[in-house]
Amino acid sequence: MEIADSRKKILAAAADYASLHGLNDLTIGKLAKSTGMSKAGLHGPFGSKEALQIETIRYAMGVFSEHVIQPARKKPSGTGRARTFCESWIQYVDGKVFPGGCFFGRVSMEGDSLSDTVNGEIRRLFNLFRRFMTAELSEERKGSKSGGAEFADQVIALVVSYNWAMHSLKNRELASHVRKLIREKFATLK
Amino acid sequence: MEIADSRKKILAAAADYASLHGLNDLTIGKLAKSTGMSKAGLHGPFGSKEALQIETIRYAMGVFSEHVIQPARKKPSGTGRARTFCESWIQYVDGKVFPGGCFFGRVSMEGDSLSDTVNGEIRRLFNLFRRFMTAELSEERKGSKSGGAEFADQVIALVVSYNWAMHSLKNRELASHVRKLIREKFATLK
Repeated sequence: MEIADSRKKILAAAADYASLHGLNDLTIGKLAKSTGMSKAGLHGPFGSKEALQIETIRYAMGVFSEHVIQPARKKPSGTGRARTFCESWIQYVDGKVFPGGCFFGRVSMEGDSLSDTVNGEIRRLFNLFRRFMTAELSEERKGSKSGGAEFADQVIALVVSYNWAMHSLKNRELASHVRKLIREKFATLK
Repeated sequence: MEIADSRKKILAAAADYASLHGLNDLTIGKLAKSTGMSKAGLHGPFGSKEALQIETIRYAMGVFSEHVIQPARKKPSGTGRARTFCESWIQYVDGKVFPGGCFFGRVSMEGDSLSDTVNGEIRRLFNLFRRFMTAELSEERKGSKSGGAEFADQVIALVVSYNWAMHSLKNRELASHVRKLIREKFATLK
């Protein structure tokens, strides 16, 4: 029990750090500094930087699920659920559940600075969000050539841009203009 | 002359590297590897990592200007010029002028992993792009509450998302959906 608690505490610190600085910059040394633990004590449970990165991503997915996916799952299936997913996502960005905003928005931007294994895990989760949104929008977008996929991709890209504007560029005016475009997109639905 | 050439060659390699891996990961050691120069030979001209980052940003701005700003400047002022700016930006992303796509799209995403000085320089250049676009769109958007600023911010955020989809997530379908939204935005202009 104590080991599980300590592991959770380390991963929470790791996810907080990565939301600000990215996963590539997440080293055992920096994590030791932010948790006040010894480097030796951290090497044990994770072994490699890559193992720590993967565990951090999975921990962050649990937090994202709690704040973004669960509130959407409570709504009836369809466009309302897709809208709740986006609204909860924006609220979680604004509320700094992670100090750097959206963990996934931040780490998905690291591209080639991460290993194929780590990028593979990030892309797998992004594809989950895309499939979730696409499925919820498919009924409404049945008449359109691309079904719900096009709409889902566009709003996901906009929420990631919103996070970028708020937390990387720290430009609230730019962020508010992006948010307005997200609202305009949803206003085109029934 | 020889010194200037060698400096340019180093900065070109630095900008190529940063477009893939970001500026935070750009070390004298990694640059030595990609240019085949000695670490000692690189320490001399730049001194600090921050000085190298700033010089790399300025070098990349010259390349961006040549590929994106100059073609737009050749058009008459107004929405046509704003459109050319965006189209040239997307062409330069697709053409991999930098191997990782848009240098500025990539490094603007690094946020708190960069120093305030380096982030300040990146934000200064982003604000230049925003002012350029806003000014060109101001006539067309005169009737709207926010002038050209809102439209400029929205398309800039979308081009950055396009670069993210193409080069960080390497997802062409997502990128093509973002590109379609950029086209739809421009289609709302006269």
